[in-house]
Amino acid sequence: MDTTVAASRRRLRQLQRTLKSRCLGAYVAVSQVEVAYLAGFRGEDSWLLVPARGRATLITDFRFAEDAAESCPHVCRLLRKNPPAEETAVLVRRLRGRLAYNPAHMTVAVRNRLARLLAAGGARRAGGLAELPDAVSEMRLIKDETEIGAIQGALRIAERAWRYFLRRIQPGMTETRLAAELDYALRSNGAEGTAFPTICAVGPSASRPHARPGSRRLTAASVLLVDFGAVYRGYRCDLTRVVLPARIRPDVRQAYLAVLAAQAAAIRAAGPGVRAVDVDAAARGVLARHGLAEAFGHGTGHGLGLEVHEGPSLSPKSGKEVLRPGMIVTIEPGVYFRGRFGIRIEDDVLITGKGRRVLSLLPKQIRRANSRSRR
Amino acid sequence: MDTTVAASRRRLRQLQRTLKSRCLGAYVAVSQVEVAYLAGFRGEDSWLLVPARGRATLITDFRFAEDAAESCPHVCRLLRKNPPAEETAVLVRRLRGRLAYNPAHMTVAVRNRLARLLAAGGARRAGGLAELPDAVSEMRLIKDETEIGAIQGALRIAERAWRYFLRRIQPGMTETRLAAELDYALRSNGAEGTAFPTICAVGPSASRPHARPGSRRLTAASVLLVDFGAVYRGYRCDLTRVVLPARIRPDVRQAYLAVLAAQAAAIRAAGPGVRAVDVDAAARGVLARHGLAEAFGHGTGHGLGLEVHEGPSLSPKSGKEVLRPGMIVTIEPGVYFRGRFGIRIEDDVLITGKGRRVLSLLPKQIRRANSRSRR
Repeated sequence: MDTTVAASRRRLRQLQRTLKSRCLGAYVAVSQVEVAYLAGFRGEDSWLLVPARGRATLITDFRFAEDAAESCPHVCRLLRKNPPAEETAVLVRRLRGRLAYNPAHMTVAVRNRLARLLAAGGARRAGGLAELPDAVSEMRLIKDETEIGAIQGALRIAERAWRYFLRRIQPGMTETRLAAELDYALRSNGAEGTAFPTICAVGPSASRPHARPGSRRLTAASVLLVDFGAVYRGYRCDLTRVVLPARIRPDVRQAYLAVLAAQAAAIRAAGPGVRAVDVDAAARGVLARHGLAEAFGHGTGHGLGLEVHEGPSLSPKSGKEVLRPGMIVTIEPGVYFRGRFGIRIEDDVLITGKGRRVLSLLPKQIRRANSRSRR
Repeated sequence: MDTTVAASRRRLRQLQRTLKSRCLGAYVAVSQVEVAYLAGFRGEDSWLLVPARGRATLITDFRFAEDAAESCPHVCRLLRKNPPAEETAVLVRRLRGRLAYNPAHMTVAVRNRLARLLAAGGARRAGGLAELPDAVSEMRLIKDETEIGAIQGALRIAERAWRYFLRRIQPGMTETRLAAELDYALRSNGAEGTAFPTICAVGPSASRPHARPGSRRLTAASVLLVDFGAVYRGYRCDLTRVVLPARIRPDVRQAYLAVLAAQAAAIRAAGPGVRAVDVDAAARGVLARHGLAEAFGHGTGHGLGLEVHEGPSLSPKSGKEVLRPGMIVTIEPGVYFRGRFGIRIEDDVLITGKGRRVLSLLPKQIRRANSRSRR
């Protein structure tokens, strides 16, 4: 809790420096994820108003009175009686300068409402609204020690759950049942929730990269793709492993080894100062040399943190994006064969000052994956 | 599947009638929930473009190629190579009239981007963008037979899970473990996921209406509040029950009976043509007569469907909102005593042509809740 408050103070100070340097009066965080990042508070329907100078105000309601008092001793707390836009407009009247917001997190409806309220309250004189797309998003790209610790915590939970899961699974189980078993293991091992809806895809189901678990049953011969993650202290991890049958078909083995090599190449390529497109190209090149370029239709990875998909993106479209120390990204090439099977291998990787560190520890060599799979 | 396609066709036709009557060229649905509602498709990062005349186009990507082909045989499908705004701008060039969108679902960043792309593509000539806040939201307020069936399906799953849960719970279990047990039961009984993060709050934890499960343990004497729901065919249910100990303290009994009476009054008050504020007032009046007005700090209920919170809202702030046949709302008064306990009882209620039908079937009388609680 204490480290969260300290981290929140640090982030608020950094945001205030940005506000001052751009002559903005205040910043309003309206999304649950930005409020969590800036204030360390995770209730719903709550906003955070950060003036360029002085204390921030958490605008929340009755339901979260106790949570707010506990997790945000360092900010003012307002238990609102009116919608957050109304309360914000009243608070902003006392401030000078424009009210900044993140256009990627605010809906057009909320912006319209805020603009109307500010104009009615005489804030037009002070400057109204200003878009500030990068301030908080940029900060969130680089994870601090608290955040790295939380993601590592999520990974340890996911890994313990995975080992339990490997002992539980049996031929005959449906994908839905398999997902239920893994989710139970995640929760029992301390996850606050699943990082996203768990994917358990048997055989042909796995040719859909984002398959929803259904009624298909595991057999002794089937390939099982599992994409899963835990939430810990609000932070998410994201892992994919493929459980192979005792007898591995040659086409499956070939695809698995190609994906494993592609992933290793992308991990080796990742590091500070490296362009995101080059990490993607490393994986893509290996798969192309195996004649699997067409089977790999998505990007190589994405950042993760409070959200399961955040910046940076590692794909052919990543433009000039460059990896920097403190970024945490997934590296997850995959190949998909409609009606047959799919293979994806995914780990979470921290970019360090000198290179990279793979934060996830589950085995993925074919022998070990296999020997564990049907015990 | 077939009923979903039929429902989608019906909804698309209704939206097209609105577009024609308002002289709009097309509507773009950008949120997962509106795309699911209009097209019956539930993949991420996908948009739906609905022209005033002709077939709609689902703009999705590689990951969802198979899902889209299966669930949307009735719309055009575009596997995008570029961001959805870019693809939309290209498609819109062929249409006449303005492009409408829901300002409550589109972020300012996306709107800015779309506006820029349309202007660059010469669509300014045709009229650019237009806000259309009500068209889809209004349709979603009234549930059709497919939707009512899905919510009933979610309820049957939640009820089976609840009975399993009551047999499993034991003194000594932590809130986290309790939530893991219930989530497992939901998934094992066919839920596609939990409708929201399950709340299992023991004793004083329950004084927070939206408590997160923690390390507090159930004892033979504690009051346990559980707020939970299942997802089925994309639709959600939302239930709260309180498990009482064998010996019920007088203050707990009094609070429980007051909340039960308040809920019964609100359910009786609900019906077609009734103002939402009056349903809220019915619950609030009963609690006030018990001297518990201050302990009830949230609204009496909310609509539910593809989202766990949607319109209408049943609260003192609901304004002129009137209940209509086909709406499904929660009715969930509660009282909260800081540091001691909390009581909330929640059911899902369909407004019918003549009155209302409580769709959830779990017992809530004190005798039965009690007799089931510690078996």
